[in-house]
Amino acid sequence: MPTLFRELEAAGDGRRVALNDALAAIPFNADGLIPAIAQDADTNRVLMLAWMNRTAIETTLRDGYATYFSRSRNALWRKGETSGHLQSLVSAHLDCDGDALLLRVRQTGPACHTNRPACFYLRLSQSGLSVEGDAP
Amino acid sequence: MPTLFRELEAAGDGRRVALNDALAAIPFNADGLIPAIAQDADTNRVLMLAWMNRTAIETTLRDGYATYFSRSRNALWRKGETSGHLQSLVSAHLDCDGDALLLRVRQTGPACHTNRPACFYLRLSQSGLSVEGDAP
Repeated sequence: MPTLFRELEAAGDGRRVALNDALAAIPFNADGLIPAIAQDADTNRVLMLAWMNRTAIETTLRDGYATYFSRSRNALWRKGETSGHLQSLVSAHLDCDGDALLLRVRQTGPACHTNRPACFYLRLSQSGLSVEGDAP
Repeated sequence: MPTLFRELEAAGDGRRVALNDALAAIPFNADGLIPAIAQDADTNRVLMLAWMNRTAIETTLRDGYATYFSRSRNALWRKGETSGHLQSLVSAHLDCDGDALLLRVRQTGPACHTNRPACFYLRLSQSGLSVEGDAP
């Protein structure tokens, strides 16, 4: 775990770190990415998981809309830039060891590219996988 | 995107796939892992993000308690096996392209190793990182 995050384990409420120092401490993976969970800030529904590089995080914080790094297109991607299904940022949170992000957002339209409201529509259990909800 | 998940994009409610076929289609990363979000099934709070390999998924579904793969210890790890802070599985969900898991759980005690209720206590914004809530 990076030193900064180990140090913050015991930190009290309101302890602050400069943005550049925090971003520099994030242990991005070998591709320079960190997983980011998008959660609906009104319903608390988990909408999707995508990936961000440092520029995506900076862009998201600056613009107030979730911008991810598309691994398939190898490029930054403002969620909803073509569909209009933007995610307005409410708040962003790093986890205890700095290797995962949680974005609380207001989602315009469906979050999933299938036009379902959220991406996690495939229920997995010992009896197999089952689709929950019809495709729109 | 794996063929199975592309095919399920347009599938209707209740469409089923055998567990082995679903697990075989998951595009695990180069380390054989997939990110798994743990969410409190009662409050919908996002508790943490960890990683699973195929055996961790099978173990979790079979035993009914979240078992992850620890990248630092390079071993399966039943969450709470030493602390007692177990996660009883309520339901498991794959996302649209099969490369992320959402576990809805009942959490015993705090989810975070710092004894905070959840791991995402580091708020990130343009004005920097700030700790939310005192360390217990």
